[in-house]
Amino acid sequence: MDQAPTLVIGGAEDKVNQLEILQTFWKRAGGYHARIGIIPSASGEPAVIGSLYQRLFENMGSRWVQVLDVREREQSEDPRWHERLQDFTGIFLTGGDQLRLATLLADSALLEALHYYRERGRLTLAGTSAGAAAMGYHMIAGGGNGESPHPALVNMANGLGFLPDVIVDQHFHNRNRVARLFSAVVMHPECLGVGVDEDTCALFEPSGELLVVGRGTVMILDAGEASSFCEPYPHSRTPVSIHNLRVHLLRRGDRFDYQRRKVLPPVYQHCPV
Amino acid sequence: MDQAPTLVIGGAEDKVNQLEILQTFWKRAGGYHARIGIIPSASGEPAVIGSLYQRLFENMGSRWVQVLDVREREQSEDPRWHERLQDFTGIFLTGGDQLRLATLLADSALLEALHYYRERGRLTLAGTSAGAAAMGYHMIAGGGNGESPHPALVNMANGLGFLPDVIVDQHFHNRNRVARLFSAVVMHPECLGVGVDEDTCALFEPSGELLVVGRGTVMILDAGEASSFCEPYPHSRTPVSIHNLRVHLLRRGDRFDYQRRKVLPPVYQHCPV
Repeated sequence: MDQAPTLVIGGAEDKVNQLEILQTFWKRAGGYHARIGIIPSASGEPAVIGSLYQRLFENMGSRWVQVLDVREREQSEDPRWHERLQDFTGIFLTGGDQLRLATLLADSALLEALHYYRERGRLTLAGTSAGAAAMGYHMIAGGGNGESPHPALVNMANGLGFLPDVIVDQHFHNRNRVARLFSAVVMHPECLGVGVDEDTCALFEPSGELLVVGRGTVMILDAGEASSFCEPYPHSRTPVSIHNLRVHLLRRGDRFDYQRRKVLPPVYQHCPV
Repeated sequence: MDQAPTLVIGGAEDKVNQLEILQTFWKRAGGYHARIGIIPSASGEPAVIGSLYQRLFENMGSRWVQVLDVREREQSEDPRWHERLQDFTGIFLTGGDQLRLATLLADSALLEALHYYRERGRLTLAGTSAGAAAMGYHMIAGGGNGESPHPALVNMANGLGFLPDVIVDQHFHNRNRVARLFSAVVMHPECLGVGVDEDTCALFEPSGELLVVGRGTVMILDAGEASSFCEPYPHSRTPVSIHNLRVHLLRRGDRFDYQRRKVLPPVYQHCPV
């Protein structure tokens, strides 16, 4: 089996037709042999959303799908998570509120166990919408739109740290979030900005390769050679500026080396549909 | 006097407080000696919008402001425009519908006269919103938003050709137009994409320098070193992709050499407020 990847999904992934992205997660987590856990903690209706995804993965042929319905800190801090997670091959973080998700999971035994098994290549991790936003160390917790990029347009918080050098935004072109990702990248130019559209997935392979799956685009903002200006106050409404930013707009089949920060030749044969 | 510049304004410029952008136009058109013509042809209410701008420039101290209320092709085709425009120092194109503006002015004696005097440095030209959109040879006539960049997201038409190598978009971050400007630039990668926010102006000097004035940002998309993919059908909904696009997000005082496509050191002393 390939090493386990991390799937960063821009929200609103297809759950009715070909389920391209959810199928990709399911296959990479082991397909018929997958043992999948769903963490619906970002959602205000965890029971509803948890059982929705449970049914979807069961319909693909999985017999081993559990909802890990963590609603309180004392649940995530239970030291038995390490043992409990050892047989899982895939974990899916649902949408909702990324700040709620990060607050419930930060510094917990559950998060530690997820990191432990993921780093050893035993756990395929996926997050959609809020679950995607929380993948980085710096997390976009919220923000505005319809304005020029400036620090107050984006609220930053700490994420779950699975992809520490990446700042994710989701529902990207759909909800006019380019300006807030630009603001976030100017505030943290060492990070790679990754904006993922709805029904689109940036699949991070442990090898350092990012592959785009799904219907829309993934925008990469690389400030490695850029010079930028930003007022040092998080509430400033003075526009940021950034010069010589390298931007890649990637579509299905496009590949990007996120460690060397270079576009790779596309592999369209990877892509169903 | 400096050579006459061209002001590309992102719409909704301040008309109440410091009038930074309109003052800049007025000063560069000659200040108290300015002779200003307002072309409200983009607008569905040309009389209202024409007299609004007339009052604004008169309040600055101009005694010589005329509304050139062109509503029919036969007016713009009048051969006397060449003579009639010879004493003007500034022309202001209002907002409205850029397709209406371009249809009324394309291949007309009025447009020819505007090009003639502007090329000789005698006419400071400004366009806001629709008036800004029509500055290039390739014009964004309309489009959608809230989707991934694809050819059908943007309707291209011919503009007035004052800045032939530039594709302008306006109300840029305000109306979620990043995806459509990306689509346009992928379809015409030889052009520089220029996205101007509301109450913001990209001031093009004839020397080849672009200066940012106003409250928001100007985004420059330079595909000079990029490789891109685009379905060759204007109605395609397949996402475009583009790799190694160089992007500059510029704010007040930032300067850009639009001929050599390089950011220049900022000159903040140029900027009031």
